[in-house]
Order: sequence, then C-alpha cells, then structure tokens
Amino acid sequence: MPVPAPILYPPFNIVRLSHVDYAVTDLARSRAFYADTLGLRITQEDPDAIYLRAMEERGHHCMILRQADTACVNLLAFKVFAEDDLDKAAAWFAAQNLSPTWVERPYQGRTLAVKDPWGMPLEFYAAMDRLPSIHQNYALYAGVKPLRIEHFNMFSADVDAAVAFYNQMGFKVTEYTEDEDTGRVWAAWMDRKGGVHDIAFTNGTGPRLHHTAFWVPTPLNIIDLLDLMSTTGWIANIERGPGRHGISNAFFLYVLDPDGHRIEIYCSDYQTIDPDHEPIRWDLKDPQRQTLWGAPAPRSWFEEGSVFADCPTTQSDMKAQPIIAP
Amino acid sequence: MPVPAPILYPPFNIVRLSHVDYAVTDLARSRAFYADTLGLRITQEDPDAIYLRAMEERGHHCMILRQADTACVNLLAFKVFAEDDLDKAAAWFAAQNLSPTWVERPYQGRTLAVKDPWGMPLEFYAAMDRLPSIHQNYALYAGVKPLRIEHFNMFSADVDAAVAFYNQMGFKVTEYTEDEDTGRVWAAWMDRKGGVHDIAFTNGTGPRLHHTAFWVPTPLNIIDLLDLMSTTGWIANIERGPGRHGISNAFFLYVLDPDGHRIEIYCSDYQTIDPDHEPIRWDLKDPQRQTLWGAPAPRSWFEEGSVFADCPTTQSDMKAQPIIAP
Amino acid sequence: MPVPAPILYPPFNIVRLSHVDYAVTDLARSRAFYADTLGLRITQEDPDAIYLRAMEERGHHCMILRQADTACVNLLAFKVFAEDDLDKAAAWFAAQNLSPTWVERPYQGRTLAVKDPWGMPLEFYAAMDRLPSIHQNYALYAGVKPLRIEHFNMFSADVDAAVAFYNQMGFKVTEYTEDEDTGRVWAAWMDRKGGVHDIAFTNGTGPRLHHTAFWVPTPLNIIDLLDLMSTTGWIANIERGPGRHGISNAFFLYVLDPDGHRIEIYCSDYQTIDPDHEPIRWDLKDPQRQTLWGAPAPRSWFEEGSVFADCPTTQSDMKAQPIIAP
Amino acid sequence: MPVPAPILYPPFNIVRLSHVDYAVTDLARSRAFYADTLGLRITQEDPDAIYLRAMEERGHHCMILRQADTACVNLLAFKVFAEDDLDKAAAWFAAQNLSPTWVERPYQGRTLAVKDPWGMPLEFYAAMDRLPSIHQNYALYAGVKPLRIEHFNMFSADVDAAVAFYNQMGFKVTEYTEDEDTGRVWAAWMDRKGGVHDIAFTNGTGPRLHHTAFWVPTPLNIIDLLDLMSTTGWIANIERGPGRHGISNAFFLYVLDPDGHRIEIYCSDYQTIDPDHEPIRWDLKDPQRQTLWGAPAPRSWFEEGSVFADCPTTQSDMKAQPIIAP
Repeated sequence: MPVPAPILYPPFNIVRLSHVDYAVTDLARSRAFYADTLGLRITQEDPDAIYLRAMEERGHHCMILRQADTACVNLLAFKVFAEDDLDKAAAWFAAQNLSPTWVERPYQGRTLAVKDPWGMPLEFYAAMDRLPSIHQNYALYAGVKPLRIEHFNMFSADVDAAVAFYNQMGFKVTEYTEDEDTGRVWAAWMDRKGGVHDIAFTNGTGPRLHHTAFWVPTPLNIIDLLDLMSTTGWIANIERGPGRHGISNAFFLYVLDPDGHRIEIYCSDYQTIDPDHEPIRWDLKDPQRQTLWGAPAPRSWFEEGSVFADCPTTQSDMKAQPIIAP
Repeated sequence: MPVPAPILYPPFNIVRLSHVDYAVTDLARSRAFYADTLGLRITQEDPDAIYLRAMEERGHHCMILRQADTACVNLLAFKVFAEDDLDKAAAWFAAQNLSPTWVERPYQGRTLAVKDPWGMPLEFYAAMDRLPSIHQNYALYAGVKPLRIEHFNMFSADVDAAVAFYNQMGFKVTEYTEDEDTGRVWAAWMDRKGGVHDIAFTNGTGPRLHHTAFWVPTPLNIIDLLDLMSTTGWIANIERGPGRHGISNAFFLYVLDPDGHRIEIYCSDYQTIDPDHEPIRWDLKDPQRQTLWGAPAPRSWFEEGSVFADCPTTQSDMKAQPIIAP
Repeated sequence: MPVPAPILYPPFNIVRLSHVDYAVTDLARSRAFYADTLGLRITQEDPDAIYLRAMEERGHHCMILRQADTACVNLLAFKVFAEDDLDKAAAWFAAQNLSPTWVERPYQGRTLAVKDPWGMPLEFYAAMDRLPSIHQNYALYAGVKPLRIEHFNMFSADVDAAVAFYNQMGFKVTEYTEDEDTGRVWAAWMDRKGGVHDIAFTNGTGPRLHHTAFWVPTPLNIIDLLDLMSTTGWIANIERGPGRHGISNAFFLYVLDPDGHRIEIYCSDYQTIDPDHEPIRWDLKDPQRQTLWGAPAPRSWFEEGSVFADCPTTQSDMKAQPIIAP
Repeated sequence: MPVPAPILYPPFNIVRLSHVDYAVTDLARSRAFYADTLGLRITQEDPDAIYLRAMEERGHHCMILRQADTACVNLLAFKVFAEDDLDKAAAWFAAQNLSPTWVERPYQGRTLAVKDPWGMPLEFYAAMDRLPSIHQNYALYAGVKPLRIEHFNMFSADVDAAVAFYNQMGFKVTEYTEDEDTGRVWAAWMDRKGGVHDIAFTNGTGPRLHHTAFWVPTPLNIIDLLDLMSTTGWIANIERGPGRHGISNAFFLYVLDPDGHRIEIYCSDYQTIDPDHEPIRWDLKDPQRQTLWGAPAPRSWFEEGSVFADCPTTQSDMKAQPIIAP
C-alpha cells in the first residue's frame, strides 16, 4: 500500500480542524458572502476583522476574516485535546527543527504557531471561548444551514511527503488516489475526528489552500444556496457542482468568495472512527473518482488556490494528470 | 356509487379557488403569522387590511386579512375562466333562487357575490390585477416556501347535499369517505384545477371553514416550519402533523393562526385532470383514511372551525364518528 | 409580443399529453432502462412490445417500447376531453388538409392519427383502459419515483410556425426564448394541462423529438437516480445535470436510453392554469435561461435528437446560437 | 451540575457502540422486518441466527438475530480501540468485582463479557472481521438507507448511579434531563464517538433496553419507511413519530420489531467531539424536551422495553413523571 499505516498513539492529540484565518481585500463584501449568503453567524466584528461560527459550533470561531491589501490564508488552526498536548506538540515540532512559537490569540487560550516543513502556517490550541448553543434557534437559519467547519484541502507539490509528515501527527488516511504508472500518491484524505477528512492534499503547485469545507444536512440546502447565489449577484462565484464525489461519497458544491478563496458546501460523508478502518484506493484515471456521476471538474478547480501568508510555492514534478473538463 | 358523476359541461367555468378573506382581531399578530412565519408575501397593506400572495402566484392576492372585532371568514373566492362565465354564473345562481349580486372589490374586475344554499359567502371574478413573477427571486424565500393556495375544506351538516350542489357547479369528486352503515357520504374532495381538490366537505356543524391549504414543494419545507414555529413562540399553534393523509396522499401539517383559523401546509397530492378520473372511496372506519401511517387526529381537528360572516350553523344529524385520538 | 395570444376556445379540447411510442433496437435492454432503472411499471409485455405507466397514472400506458431494426419515435399521443372532441379534431385537421385517419390501438378507444404540417406523427384518443391506482403501493417504488409523464420537447426548423400551428390547437405559450437580433422565437414552451408545458419546440434540425419528460416529487429522487445509474453500468447514459433551468424553474436531469432517446427527469415547475397567465420571455443570450446556476449545456444536448418514423427532417436557417459548453 | 464531569483519560478506550444481539421468536419474520423493510444487509445467515450490517459499516455485524423461545436482548457490544484496551477493561471490571470472562464469538477477535452492576450483559472486542465497503453500491439501497448503528437507550431504575458508573468507563454526558424538585437526573445521553450518544439511560423499570437506533441521511428516508411500513402490513409496528426531539435535535421515528424490540430511525444530531463540550440541561417538565414540536410521547414509549437475558429488573422509586399523551 502506498500510504502509511495510521499512527494509533501520535505524539500529541489533535481533536479536529478548528478554523481558518483569511486575509480579504474588502471586508464588507466578504461579510455579504459568508454571513448573508452562506449563513455563517458573526460572533465578533470590528473594522479590521470579523469572527464567525457555524450553527452547531460552540467554539467562538471557525473562520476569521481580516481586512488586508492582498488576499491570502493567514493560518489553519486545529484544536488539541488538552493543555499538555500543546506542550507535547511544541516538543515534537521542535524535534522536527520547526521552531514553534507561542502566540496570543483573542478568544483562545495558549496557542502554538508553527510552519510545517513546506512553510504552511499552522496553529494549535486546547481552549477557545465557548458560546451558548444556537442550533435550535431556528429563526437564525437562512436557507443554507452551515452546521460546522468540516475540512481543509491543500495543494501540495509532494503529496507523498505531506502524507508521511501529517501521518506522524496522527492524521490517518481514509481515501487516496494513486498514479498507477508511478505508484505515487496523487491525492490523500486524512482524518482526526472520525469522518473522511479533517485535511486533504492534492497534487499541484503548493503549499496552497484548495478549499475550506462546511457541512450542511441535506442536498436540498445546497440547492437552496445555488438558487440564492444565482439570483442575488453571485452567479459568477459558482465554480463546480452540484455533484457527488466518488471519493468520500460527498454531495458537493464549490463556490468562490469575493477574493477567490474556494469554499466547499458538503453533505453526506461517512464515519471512519474505527482505528482499523481501511483506506479506499482510487485510480487517478478513474472518471468516477472526482464525480461519481461522471462529469469532470473544470480546469480552474485543479489549478487555482489561495496562497498562504509568507509561504513561497513550488511546482509539482508529477506528470500525471486528472481528467479535466474541456 | 354514492357520489354523483362529474358534470363535464357545467353551467359556468370555474378555473380554481382564488382567495380567502379572513376577519382577524389583531392584524399585526396575523401579519406576524402569515407573512413572517408562513412566508406569504404582502402585496398591499393599510391599517385595516393586508393582501398577500404565495410565491408562484401572479394574481394580486390569495388571502385578505381584515381587522375586525370578531374573527370569522368573510368569503371564499373563485376565479372563473372568462367574463361571460360571470354572467352565466349570475344566471345560474338566480335560477337556483340564490340572489347573486355584483360587488366592487379592489384589484379585481367584475365580481359576483352569492351565498350558497346554506349561507356560505362565495365570490367569483374573471380578472384580478396581475403582478410580476417572483418565484425565482430566491432571496425572498424564507424556509417555508408557500407556493400557492391549494384548497378550502368546509364543515357541512349535510355533505351529500353539499356535494350534489357543488357538483352541479362543475366540481368533480376525486376521493370520498362513506359511512358504510348508512351509505351516506361523510366527507368528499372535489376539484376544478386538476389536483385532488379545490374544495372539500367534511361532516360536522356547518357551514364553517375547516381550513385553507397552501402548497409547498417538499416535506422538508414543512419540517422547517415546525422547527421555526416551535422555537419562535408559535408552538401552541401547531395542531396536527406532520403526517401523510391516506386521502389525497398529501404530506400535511395543520397549524392555527392567532384567531384559530386553521391552515394546512401541504405537499405531494396527484394529478386528476382526466375527465374520466375515477374517485377513490374510503371507509369511515379505515384508520389509514385520515393518516396513512395510522395516528388518529385530535378531537379539536374534528370539532373546531371558523364561522362564516352572517352565516348561522346547523348541527349534523349523522351519528357516524371517525376515529379520534384519545 | 412575438408569440401568439392563447386561443381560449380551441377547435377541440386536448386534456394533456398522453404517451410516446418508441421504436427500440433491443427490447430487453430498454426494459432494463425504463422499468428496472427509471422505475416505470410494466402494464403489458409481449415479445415485440412493452407498455408502461408511471406511478400516479390510471391510464394503461404513457410509453410503448416496440422492438425494431432502427430506433425512432413512432408517434406522440394526446388525450382529448370527450369522444366528440375526436370528431371535431378530425374535422379540423381535414380543414388543414392534413388527412387524419382512424386507427385501431389496443387498450384505447377510437384513435385519430394525423401528421402535423412537418410530418410529425400524432395520435388522439378520448378513452384508454383505466387501471387501479398504485400510487400508495409504496413497496412498488424503487428510489426514483416517476409519478407521471410530463411533456414532450421537439426540435423544429421553424419554431415560429410550429408555435402558430399548435397555438391554434389550444396550446398556450408559458415561456419562450427570443433571438433579440431577429425577433424570431428560438424556443417555446406550451401547455394544455396547467403546468409549464405539455409540449415545447426548440430551434434545430426537425422535426425530431428532443426528449420526453417524467415528473418526480423531489430533487432527492433525481440524486438517487444519478447514484443508481452511475454505479450500475449506466454512467455513459447521463448527459446533463442535475441543475435548475431558468426556463420553467425545473430541477432537471437528462439521461439517454440505450438507443439514445433522451429522457428528462424533472421536478418543481409551477401552475399556469389561469387563462390570462402571461408568458415569460427569455433572451437567447441570457446564460441563466438554460441553467439558472450558470452551467451551459453540452453540444450534444443542442444537436442530438430522435427522428420520427417516416418523417424527413429539415435544417433550421436560424443563425442564432445558444451558449454551448466548450 | 447534577452530572459528573467527563473522565478524559478513562481506564480503557471504547471507540463506539458496536452491535446488539436479540433473541427473537420467529426468525423469518424478524428477517422480513430488519432486512426487507428497514434495509439492513445480511452478512451471514443460518437456521438459528442472522447477522446484519448497515450500509456504511465495514465491520461484519451491527445486529445479531437469534431464534429463541422467548424474546429478549442477549447482549450489547462495544468496540475498543486496541487489544490492550481489552486487558485494561478486564482488569478494571475485576477491580469493580464484576467477574469479566473471555468468550468466543464468531467473526470477532478476543471478546470480553461482563455484566454491569445491575446485571446488564455487555461485551467488548477490539477486532471484528472487516468487509468490503458497499456504501456506493447504490443498487443495494431500498428506500430507507440505514447507514450505521447509532446508539442504545436503556431504562434504568437509578439513572444517577448508571451515569456515574458509565462515566467512569469514559462515556461523557452530552444532554440530560433533571427533575427539578429532587435534583435527580431523570435521563442522560452519553457518548464515546463524538455524536450526542452511544448510550442513554431513562428512568424506569430496569435494566431494560428501550431501543436501538440507526442513522439515516435525511428525514425523507424516514418518510419513505413510514409509507412502506404502513402499506405492507407493518402499520401496527409504528409507535411514535415522525418528530424532532428537543433533546439531541434528532428527527426521529420509533418502530417495533415483531417481538416488540423498539428501533429508532434517526437523523440529524450534532458533533460533540470537543472534550470541553458542555452538556445541555433539560427540565423534565419542559414539553419540548421530548418533542421540539410539542406532541407528547405515548404511554407505551415510557413503559415498554426489552428485558435482558437473565437480568432481573427493579422498579424505579422516582416519582417524577414526564408528560404523556392522553
């Protein structure tokens, strides 16, 4: 098998992905997209930044939007199980020569910042301000019903190496795509929280963020979003879908925020909580890998992504190509 | 068969039910119910009256709410095919000794008013102001998505007689409930527009309006309404459902407006457009008649209704009883 | 307005479209498609032909599949209101110099056959064998739930002329697409039964049948069909969708039967029953016309169709082009 | 707070609930219920026992049905993280004076059996035969789509004591109902796998199994089951629902198998994976606790349950009563 076995007792315990911090060039326009259209709830707002959470989340934020001159991704954050997991993480990253630092973040307890070996900015915390539950305040739902942040998907110029590194951190591979000719992994989906993924890596110029995903309860919520976006001036921001991925079995839609940050709205993946859960292998040439129903993704979907702050990118040397829509 | 054959060429051509005119005792509270909760659109509003339409309707109104000291139903209205159908209707009602009169109604052309033989106030028109379509203005939809007025259901003290009269007006029976012991009809569903019904009659103290129904596209819209009403102070206004009727196969919910006028939110009946469409017979003692899934309706559902303006009621002498929840 | 006003009192009364008769080259394979995959019910089967109905229909058949050496469409059939409408139809077609003939059709009463001015084979009947209702036999439903035949869509080399002719027969235009440069109608949707259409005409080499549509209750039934077809060997038969048409507001999927006859699975159009229902105009260059969400249709969708038996085709001279996927 | 804080580092690591072993009195009839109606897949079948799994599960079984003279629940089983968790579990149960034993179970590795302090039979294993994934074999789905076993709910004569004991085993309380007058816990929901619950305890004569729950993707799957059961001879087996619980926010239906074992079909609870996830408190007198929409549960729902094999029951001394349908 070209993917590593899961590390059952990792050096520190990551519970789940937590939040993304986006630099955006027009905060009001991003607010219109994320709050008024996608339906995320604003938990804090000032002239420079907006914090949002999804409807079932108790943590203070799953997304931070910061006004900036240039759009990028400031960081990806993860929640660890307990305070001492932060110390274990600091020790482990230091042992990898990665120079972790402690940073101050509002609404969070102790927070550890580190760049992964390719320069991707990560943060870890154990405690975040907790808010009252609102998932049964049904008057707050507009049509789309984003319930929780679900996963990050990254371009990587060396997916095999990224998988090996993140596997050491305790992420287990649930599905992967192999290039049959070379035996290299073209893409991999890796989880901590017991679904198909908290993070995924796809071959391409990287590191870049391909998308952040939010979970909704049914395909009809995704259809509602399509109807809403296409009749309120956001039609050009619909990139791909709706469809069902072969990988993960998710019903998906990809939309672009005003800066081109890609968001997936997603439902219906499956539980992978068993430590002996076997990964599913897909062949890069299988047309049902991308879309179970056969429609290929557009070129933009394979090529465009969000750069990370202060993080140079490298082109992949992998020649294999997925099927791309003409 | 205890129900009459359809009159294929009736004396005048009714297209469909059109609107209901309710007297309500607190216009602001009724507005909160119909516009803010059910999602009907206000097309005209003044201190004494509110006009509303459903999302797919082009006519100016399917409901009028009028401030009054006492709640009642002022009238039920129907659209006829053409202007000369109004004249034919006037002649036919006069021939029945029913004294039709011409009345002025805003937003409508010539309008004929008449009381049926039991005193129920009816109005007929051919032309109503037409409004631009809004069914694709998806930003206007809140969760519930009422698309169109669907039917009226009335208590009648003599269902056989009511069916005979309205059958003469061109309504055809699509389903009916028979009391096997007496051979009398306990309830009947009658249509003009090609669905299961525009009007229905149920045995009971009458004439009274049992409910007005609105059509929504899927059961999930009804679940959304339940979630919304139960968490915004309207829980006591949920009377019955969700469930599927045996009769009509509709997925239903019954709610009560602030004055107790009953509204059905409804989806998934079927097409009955063929002139040779055979009515379906149900036995009053069949528990799946009311609810295909078996749960009986509460007593209130069989006993409570809205009186019509200036229309005394009569008790039914029918002894047969449906199955009522304990 | 470039489309004619509806003829409110047409020369004979067509109730609705009724059925399509397809010549197919492998009856067993077509059976696997229509009965085992789409979920239509077989009402009669012999070595040469299969009759099917949809789940809410009481008439004996909405589709006939006939074994043949070459695939084509044998005829499109319509139900008229009463027997004397057949005589009126015969007279009217004769007055148009169209040579109607009386034919014998199993399970049907008197049946009138005629070719329209472009050679398209039509049949009309008033009476068809009626079958017991099965819409509440829920064990019969597989996932897809086709409830009724919904409409025919035809390629026409002269849409303006086709609309003018069928308008005389009582079909009213509900939506249409205009080529702004020439003022000619590029496509039109016309109904009898009170929905967006019983028939439609689209510019192209014609007469050919573009597709036959079936109505299902929710988008989830269409998603179920996609999942089923894509994992049971029918993936290459998925042509376009899922999506929402701007025109008609329908949620759609287009699939191809084993001979390439195109079938639309469809939900959520709207009621057009008012005789004064105003048609909606679309500009041919409006990208939301085809798909409200913006994705263009593939070239095959604009070019491929089923020929009618013994009916030569003509190319359209219209230069205007819709937006086609690259 | 009347419920204990979660034990973050429990004595052994339970991953999730795994399976239930039912004694049934007519194996063929139970097969018709679980396989043909609910849609569970048979993975092994012999004259005395049937093993089943749900559609997304890779483990060999989530339910075992065994032919017996008397219906009961033979055992509830849980999957632990690793083999040494079994040894830790054995030591811990021994330290509680509970006499765990090692038993042989087909399709499972080492299996530890123990009775809890009230006599409820539990089993634990780390390894079970793994089967190929079938969740994308869409031809296998009938309407209902049970995707995975979700939770067990038990009657307990002393919920406070049961919660204290299972909390020691690592189950954390996510929601609970308090009797305000006494401060005692009337019911509690406790999880391992990051949803609202793997197990729950409700006040009543216990230990008995109240129900086993299965997860389906949308409310429409539950409506499909209602339609199917009510038209295929299972209508008397529908006990309660559909509705939405206040507790857990789940959309639910309760049905009874041929021996009266209660099954919940369930969707839409929420993620509770954070170790600092705060439990939600409900008052026993809150009518929205049981059903967010207000309809009370029937008496049978509070009183009837399945006894465990060789496990005497005790009446609760708690006087507080939930709201029961008249």
